[in-house]
Order: sequence, then C-alpha cells, then structure tokens
Amino acid sequence: MENKISLAHGSGGKGTNDLINSLFLKYFNNTVLNELNDSALLSVKSKNVAFTTDSFVINPIFFKGGDIGKLSICGTVNDLAVSGAKPMYLSSSFIIEEGFSMESLETIVKSMAKTAEIANVKIVTGDTKVVPKGSTDGIFINTSGIGFLYDNVDIKASNARIGDVIIVNGTLGDHGIEIMCERNNIEMYGNLSSDCTHLNFLIKNILETCPYIHVIRDATRGGLAAVLNEIASMSNISIELEENFIPVKEEVKGTCEMLGLDPLYIANEGKICCFVPEKYAYDVLCKMKNHPLGINASIIGKVVNKGSMEVYMNTFIGGKRIIDMPSGYGLPRIC
Amino acid sequence: MENKISLAHGSGGKGTNDLINSLFLKYFNNTVLNELNDSALLSVKSKNVAFTTDSFVINPIFFKGGDIGKLSICGTVNDLAVSGAKPMYLSSSFIIEEGFSMESLETIVKSMAKTAEIANVKIVTGDTKVVPKGSTDGIFINTSGIGFLYDNVDIKASNARIGDVIIVNGTLGDHGIEIMCERNNIEMYGNLSSDCTHLNFLIKNILETCPYIHVIRDATRGGLAAVLNEIASMSNISIELEENFIPVKEEVKGTCEMLGLDPLYIANEGKICCFVPEKYAYDVLCKMKNHPLGINASIIGKVVNKGSMEVYMNTFIGGKRIIDMPSGYGLPRIC
Repeated sequence: MENKISLAHGSGGKGTNDLINSLFLKYFNNTVLNELNDSALLSVKSKNVAFTTDSFVINPIFFKGGDIGKLSICGTVNDLAVSGAKPMYLSSSFIIEEGFSMESLETIVKSMAKTAEIANVKIVTGDTKVVPKGSTDGIFINTSGIGFLYDNVDIKASNARIGDVIIVNGTLGDHGIEIMCERNNIEMYGNLSSDCTHLNFLIKNILETCPYIHVIRDATRGGLAAVLNEIASMSNISIELEENFIPVKEEVKGTCEMLGLDPLYIANEGKICCFVPEKYAYDVLCKMKNHPLGINASIIGKVVNKGSMEVYMNTFIGGKRIIDMPSGYGLPRIC
Repeated sequence: MENKISLAHGSGGKGTNDLINSLFLKYFNNTVLNELNDSALLSVKSKNVAFTTDSFVINPIFFKGGDIGKLSICGTVNDLAVSGAKPMYLSSSFIIEEGFSMESLETIVKSMAKTAEIANVKIVTGDTKVVPKGSTDGIFINTSGIGFLYDNVDIKASNARIGDVIIVNGTLGDHGIEIMCERNNIEMYGNLSSDCTHLNFLIKNILETCPYIHVIRDATRGGLAAVLNEIASMSNISIELEENFIPVKEEVKGTCEMLGLDPLYIANEGKICCFVPEKYAYDVLCKMKNHPLGINASIIGKVVNKGSMEVYMNTFIGGKRIIDMPSGYGLPRIC
C-alpha cells in the first residue's frame, strides 16, 4: 500500500479498487458490503425504520477519547438510538485530501470498524472521493444509518409533557472542552477526555424499563442548551433546570470559568437528555446509573407550564437565569 | 436571510435553525422532514431494501446540464435504481465553506428539490456543517438513499452470463468532457452539456419489459471501461465490444481526439449499461429507445467466454484492443 492518498485512489479505477480491497473490505468486512454493488441489499424485518445522516469535519481528527472515525460511528448510532431505534446498518463516505497519510486513514478505518463492532452495527455501503491538495483540510466522513424502531415507543422532540422529569446520563461539556484544549494547546490538569461513545445499549436498557419516555435527544453541537430550547419550542412547553443538579466535571467547570464559557452550551458526544413521565423517573435514573455510561446520571429539572417555551435555571445563589438558544458561532469543527 | 454562510449557520443554535427554516424546510418540505427529529421515521412496505451513499465534490458546482445539487440527487437515485430498487427516501448532508454565497446555496437547494420532485423521491433527513474559510473549497454534498427492491429482480455485478447482450442508453463521455471544458475554459462548438439525469423511470420501464436483466450499472467515474472491467471481474467472464456500435457525440469524439482521451474512460452521469439475456435484448433496446433518456440507446457488445475476465473491443479498422481498468488519476472532482 502506498503511504499517501493520491488522486488515483478516487478515480474509480484501479487505485479506488486497491483502497477498497486493502482497507475498507479488510476492516469493515461483512457479507453485504463484500458484494460491492452500487447499493447494499438489506433484508428489513421492521416496518418502522429510522434513517439519519451526519457529516463529520472535526479538527483535530485524533483527540483524547476518540478520533473522527469513532465519532462518525457513534454520532450516527446515537441519532438512531435517540429516535427509539435499534441501529442496524451504516454507510460511510470519505472525502480525503490528496496527500493524506495512509497510516492515519488506516487508523481511522480500524477505529470505525472496532466501534461498529462494539455497537453491533454493520457498515454495508460506502464511497470515497479524493480532492486535490488544498481543496479540503485532511478528511471529512459522512455516515448515514438505518435502524429498526422498537415496538411501542413514541419518542419525538414534540412529545414533552408538563410534569416530565429531565434526566441526563452524565457530566456535560467534556467533548467540547477537550477539543478546544487540544486545538489551543491548553494543558489540562486532571483526566479530561472526550465523552465520545455509542449510547445505543444504554438507551435500549432504559426503554426496556420505561417505553413511555417522551423525548430522548443527544446534546451535541450547541450543547444541552440548544437541545432543550428545541424541545421547548417543538413541544410548546417550558423547562426549569436546577443548577445544583447539573453534573459537570471539575476540569470542565474550571476551564469554563477561566474562559467565560457555560457548560450548558458546550458540545457532548456521549450525553443524552431524557424526558420521562414523573412516575418512571426513579426507575429510569436507577437503570442509567447501573450502566457504565450512566454512572453520573442525574435528574436536572422538569417540564413546567405550557405555552411560554422558555428554558430557565434556578441558580446556586437562588436566582433564575434564562438559558437561551445559542446564537453565536460556537466552536467550529467540533464534530 | 444573510447573503453569506457564516460559522453560526453550522453552530447547532439559532443560525442553524434559521438556515433549516428559511431554506431546507422551505424547499424540501415534506411531512417526514418537517418533524425535525434526529432521524427520519419511515414506514417501510418492502422487506428488501437498497441502501447507498455518495459524496459530491464536483468543481465547478454549476455547469451546462446541471449543478452539484441536481447531481447529488441523480447520483443517489441512479445508484438505487441500478440495483433494481424504486428510489424512495434521500438524506442530504452539506459541508459548506464559511463565506459561501447564500444565493448559490439557495440555487443548489432549489435544484435538489426540483430534481427530487421529478424523480419522485423525498429528502427526509439532513445535516449541515460549516467549516472555516480555507478548510474546504465551496460546498460538498452527501446524499444517501433508501429504495424498495422490485419483486422478482436479481441484479448484481456478479450476475453477467455468457451470451448476455450489453446495451447502453446513449452517448458516452458527455459529462466528463463538459466538466473538463468548463474547467479549462475550452470553447465547445455544438451543444454539448452534461448528461446528468435520474434514470429511475427508464430503468423501471425496462425491468417491466424484462425482469431477467442480469446486471445494470451506471458508468460514472472511470467511465464505461471501469464498470465493464468490474463486472468482468466479479462475474468471471469476458466482454467483447464493437467500436462501431458505441454511441459518442461528435463534440466528445473531437475533444477526445484532440486531447488524446478515450470516451470509454470518461465519466457519465446519465448512462447505464445493461447485461440482458440475448432473447430479451431487442425488447429492452426498443423500450429504451422509446424513452426520452434512451433515444440513442445501442447494443455495444456481448459477454463471451468465461474465465479470462478480459474486456476488449473490435475496432473500426478491424483490430482488437484491450480495454483495461483505468489506472491513472483521471479528472478529479468530476462528481
């Protein structure tokens, strides 16, 4: 194998075939992909299917806790899982800059394969484009995914109801702060790393405990603030948070204080918020806490009066603060 | 609406919501997309589903006969159709450079919407990333797609059989030569434009006439040469072409002669080759020629002895020429 990606790898000819055989088939190996047809041919056993897409442009591509490959699998698996679906099949489409290191590409592909295996999804179809040096920066990956909806669940951003208890599965802001520190060479004391992970098994567990969960969303770009504002708007409700209850790591808290950031607005890649009817809240919280990815789960607030579509937080010091939809630039290339 | 794309449009906050509402929902408008969940929730009436993905990085993004938007819909629709599926649902994921013209984006989105409508597919889920100026060149679009397989068809690159007649639906090389001329400011006499189009209705027609077609492939990157070599290799057969029978426009022929190119190696975006059992060849050819996208359809060759996996052509002047798998760089950013 050559040690750099060349335009020939994207030509559709011998170079592309070499790349497919030496890399993608080697690591993604499964009977559907190996057929190498223009489309993957799938046998679908569910009438209700979830379908999603996400492009990943993160910079840096390798970071503490993950890499663009792991992220691209987890992101799409999570988008399917929060819709109440069992993630099944993924596509992977690469846009690679000419001259990109073949070793890095192999590391990324191995990471995708490993993550897909652990998350129990198959990468069944793909595409590779190579663009001339300078036309892009390194590598972008799109993953799209198909999942089969679980029976008897009805999870939608518009389903939040007054009285719902809001639960998150752990500390907020880890991914965004880690990426920011990596990018700006900020030395972090402590053990911060991205929370990038696949949450499908955790979500399956809590749905088995309580299929009546109204909303599940992953709090990625724009952080928890963006997600809660979207839900408030789509469900036409208000949300009351308790600052005391919101789990944030000391390292994240410190960095945010130093830089004037708010952990509620920082991206996560392994955190969901769930809107649970009050009578099931304790059971869901227990189930989360018994899962390795939910040890720091916490009830953080509740849905209050219908109509105003406001998200606000009762603060440590007894005040009340509006948590607006993020409106600024945020940190680009965070996912 | 602002007149340029800013990083805020990719932040996941207000800017992203504005873009979704003012552009994507406006033009892609359908009940599934409008729900704005993390995944599109689909009702799947077929047990056999085709799933495909493609990223489009073409340069220039506007060209005679199409644009990156139209291309991104047609490309994925065609990948589903050549698998013997009725294209149903598409995702669209944008990677846009900061500063990209909002007007151009709107033109592209309108073009996608119009093409999707004509091709009778729905864009049901999407994603938008904005990367800082210089991190990419303009706009890249990924579309993934889901189709429902027609009953009783079995179309695979490995299904070609000795005696199969090979039919193409029209002239070869139009797309690649058009893009090359645009990019190099070569003035073209005549009326050449890209053949970019969606072939799902043409393919449906011929499958209704003959569900026993063994292979259908669209001859995109690497041209017909790449596709035929892939099929020869996967079906373990040889292919004999007749140069006399291969339809090529005069403009393409002239440009190829001038630049030392071979139309068989030039990309198409609206051309398929079909491997048809001999006794159905005439019917399929007639059906093609009766469709506006198959007027110039032609039988171009046949499958010969099994074993050697060779593609060769009987030339005008009575010789025999091997048509190898393309091995060079080709023209980058052709799709």
